[in-house]
Amino acid sequence: MSTPFEFELIAQDGRARAGLFHTPHGDIPTPIFAPVGTQATVKSLTPAHLNQIQSSLILANTYHLYLRPGDELVAEMGGLHAFMNWSRPILTDSGGFQVFSLGGINQIDDEGVTFKSHVDGSMHRLTPERSMAIQENLGADIIMAFDECAEPYDRDYNEIAMQRTHAWARRCINAKTRTDQALFGIVQGGIFPDLRQQSAEFIASLNLPGNAIGGLSVGETKVEMHTILEVVDAVLPEDKPRYLMGVGTPDDLVNGVLRGVDIFDCVLPTRLARHKAAFSGRGRINIGKAEYARDPRPLVEDCACYTCQNFSRAYLRHLVSVKEMLASTLLSIHNLHTLIHLAQEMRQAIIAGQFEQFAQSYFAQ
Amino acid sequence: MSTPFEFELIAQDGRARAGLFHTPHGDIPTPIFAPVGTQATVKSLTPAHLNQIQSSLILANTYHLYLRPGDELVAEMGGLHAFMNWSRPILTDSGGFQVFSLGGINQIDDEGVTFKSHVDGSMHRLTPERSMAIQENLGADIIMAFDECAEPYDRDYNEIAMQRTHAWARRCINAKTRTDQALFGIVQGGIFPDLRQQSAEFIASLNLPGNAIGGLSVGETKVEMHTILEVVDAVLPEDKPRYLMGVGTPDDLVNGVLRGVDIFDCVLPTRLARHKAAFSGRGRINIGKAEYARDPRPLVEDCACYTCQNFSRAYLRHLVSVKEMLASTLLSIHNLHTLIHLAQEMRQAIIAGQFEQFAQSYFAQ
Repeated sequence: MSTPFEFELIAQDGRARAGLFHTPHGDIPTPIFAPVGTQATVKSLTPAHLNQIQSSLILANTYHLYLRPGDELVAEMGGLHAFMNWSRPILTDSGGFQVFSLGGINQIDDEGVTFKSHVDGSMHRLTPERSMAIQENLGADIIMAFDECAEPYDRDYNEIAMQRTHAWARRCINAKTRTDQALFGIVQGGIFPDLRQQSAEFIASLNLPGNAIGGLSVGETKVEMHTILEVVDAVLPEDKPRYLMGVGTPDDLVNGVLRGVDIFDCVLPTRLARHKAAFSGRGRINIGKAEYARDPRPLVEDCACYTCQNFSRAYLRHLVSVKEMLASTLLSIHNLHTLIHLAQEMRQAIIAGQFEQFAQSYFAQ
Repeated sequence: MSTPFEFELIAQDGRARAGLFHTPHGDIPTPIFAPVGTQATVKSLTPAHLNQIQSSLILANTYHLYLRPGDELVAEMGGLHAFMNWSRPILTDSGGFQVFSLGGINQIDDEGVTFKSHVDGSMHRLTPERSMAIQENLGADIIMAFDECAEPYDRDYNEIAMQRTHAWARRCINAKTRTDQALFGIVQGGIFPDLRQQSAEFIASLNLPGNAIGGLSVGETKVEMHTILEVVDAVLPEDKPRYLMGVGTPDDLVNGVLRGVDIFDCVLPTRLARHKAAFSGRGRINIGKAEYARDPRPLVEDCACYTCQNFSRAYLRHLVSVKEMLASTLLSIHNLHTLIHLAQEMRQAIIAGQFEQFAQSYFAQ
């Protein structure tokens, strides 16, 4: 009998893979870019917008939703899918990364983490068991093991954090009770190839339905990131999806897929949108600049998104200048479409056995 | 030969009227509520949202667009329809009301108004001729005569402002050059029935394709507003649409239609939305209240809008609590839908000869 979380590997081209990950809320075609809906909303977009740009998987953040409105409230309202009206797959992170980056850390020990809420200063404690219970209340299709993300260049701390991450992954497996959620393990180890190798071997040994690479895009160089991806790619099982957490420029997507990554997420496209920036080819344009005031062209000439099909740079520049909310919406649509469409194009190229040419012509831009 | 701006009176029921106003960008069924897109955007909504809630006519503000991005820039970009991607009818006001309410007035004389920009303090001058030139650059289907809106209870000032409004209306007619825009005159006169009678007679005598009632909903009582509407209704020609400017609660719409009004606009529905409030029957609910935190019901039980069909009060309350932009979008959709749908229901009731019953049962709620 097939599990609900089978990963079908449809094609491989070099290290790049095209797959289909089956979940209770539908199939996730990979490679894929997943928009981030931190507080159970992808900022400034309706679910109808997300459908229009062909989002399949979206993310939500356990840390934020635990604090507000509370995971029990979400469960009472039927879980995240019903609460935010998203019928396709959802992934929740473990809360770990936000506890370390947003929460005021009070204490970390082998048992878990005590932290101060960034909202009201109240004290809270997260452990692997609590993270699982919260994520079970939220009810996403993919849930993440509670991990510790260390400063990438601190070897001593990375050794400790990696060991904790491994021990916590086992505790997450033991604590998990729902069978309709896929638990992914997370490889840590900073920028140290030997630690990453060790971590990937341990996480792979847990035989979870998917594996993630954490602790990247947090200050290391691109060369370091690529080295780590290559180390981890050689170890992680090919018949499970690989999720590179929190990484999402267009270049990162192509570089990740070249190194065997299947799933990406990042707040970047919507955050850039709120700061007037739009993806344009491999670069970005700041649409607030005066030079766009009378520019009748779309953001990107051949882009098929709603924004580029219907609005000029001049109009977007006006919206940004007068601080209208619609600017965020239209720029978010364009930026997310760009990454989702790029992932779709890569998938087609892999299936057609032409991914190497695709990547070459992409980087020749 | 029929003009492009013929008003077809389809049915009358008491003083209430159902009509069809023909414009170069399509027919406007009346009674109608027009959303306000002050800065060439109905705040937080895409044109696709506006189509979904069956908006026909929308407004834009001459004062704001003259200041930013400038009417010449809008003309260069093909006019407002192309600029904001709205293919159905648009109405621009004259700039007069905003000059008096937002601009720092420097000087008013019979020639025009000198004012200080609320954006950067720069000095500007608007005259009937300039207002026409700006509105011709913006390119709306319906443009408004430049008028002076006086404090409603000041009789002396209202006499002066009314005379100026009349003189300025004649100058607008003379200054107007485009034949694909309908110029509407504006009745002024504060809360004084004799002034309103006199103003309505003058404005009617200009034989413009439509007539508006200005200077209401600015501090007077509902009884005073209704008295004025009745006075004006008895004078204005029946074969031209009547536009009650800046008025738009659900009660106001029903009371206006009962007194012969065809067109309404107001920032209220989108402004309320940005302040957490939703229309609910004849009242409002503040969705930020704690009592809605676990309320699984939609805002309004039998409402057909996208928001009510897809989201709970609990979700909306969460969005409002964590200050997510999507709250404004979803509440704006609901509030605008409520008024547009109410106008549609009134139109059907008038055509069916059942408007009296409709209004009775509406006010019995």
